[in-house]
Amino acid sequence: MMTPIRILGIDPGLRRTGWGVIETLGNRLSFIASGTVTSDNRLELARRLVQLHDGLAEVVQRQAPMEAAVELTFVNKDAGATLKLGQARGVALLVPSLAGLQVAEYAPNLVKKTVVGTGHAEKEQIRAMVKVLMPKAVFNSDDAADALAIAICHAHHRKAPLGRLAQVGGV
Amino acid sequence: MMTPIRILGIDPGLRRTGWGVIETLGNRLSFIASGTVTSDNRLELARRLVQLHDGLAEVVQRQAPMEAAVELTFVNKDAGATLKLGQARGVALLVPSLAGLQVAEYAPNLVKKTVVGTGHAEKEQIRAMVKVLMPKAVFNSDDAADALAIAICHAHHRKAPLGRLAQVGGV
Repeated sequence: MMTPIRILGIDPGLRRTGWGVIETLGNRLSFIASGTVTSDNRLELARRLVQLHDGLAEVVQRQAPMEAAVELTFVNKDAGATLKLGQARGVALLVPSLAGLQVAEYAPNLVKKTVVGTGHAEKEQIRAMVKVLMPKAVFNSDDAADALAIAICHAHHRKAPLGRLAQVGGV
Repeated sequence: MMTPIRILGIDPGLRRTGWGVIETLGNRLSFIASGTVTSDNRLELARRLVQLHDGLAEVVQRQAPMEAAVELTFVNKDAGATLKLGQARGVALLVPSLAGLQVAEYAPNLVKKTVVGTGHAEKEQIRAMVKVLMPKAVFNSDDAADALAIAICHAHHRKAPLGRLAQVGGV
């Protein structure tokens, strides 16, 4: 009996962090849930990071993913924006790892190439292809759609752990 | 009766995060403890952030600071380094805030100006002045000395909460 692998994808951002949970079984993908964690920009930075932490920790607890994947952020030319993103990204990597999950990182180009077929896809194409690959998928933001795309990318590129392979009698 | 305020200063970095704990009572400063939390660069990024998290969480638990201060990082010209630092900084801001502490941020120039008297001090001058201000201070790295300087900066610039002022009857 093969067991589906439940994957959490995260598209980190200080204002909005998208998340998406899917299951993969062989070549099949199933949508489980998606959403957006926001932080209040009237609060001090440390409190905003706590909001991201608490929102993602709740997702990890409720959705019980087995593996996680976070987008390897494109390094911006604006150093202030890069620093902000880095801080949010630190929390996005930390939360699933604190829960004991392996956290993979994928470059945006690989995510686009995996989901759309080209490394230069627009947001619109990513949303459309996520719906084609998982017709039941719903998402409330571009960030949530991106997070589902990251989870799909991980489903395609993940290396099955040896323990699991032995268990299911595969290669 | 005035109660000393215990302050945690943090100088964040992915490889080495310095921390320092002091107490301030009126104009008096006392050294309590300092140290360095390191992460293993052979591990994946998410695990390294967990190491920083766990190290800082232990410091917060053992030293029981009442307020925290983190250096407002100088934005580097190297975007990759800025992103790395941002990730470590996100964890450094998160941990004390998760414990319910207010977390202040200070620019490096203000830290230097407060401790040494000029905004362009060298590391050597900071170490020397930390020892002048708190003769009992010991530190095992430049990062720990910087963290103590950040805590001293906060001791000088913090606003006493109104509740505390009312309690001690002072202004």
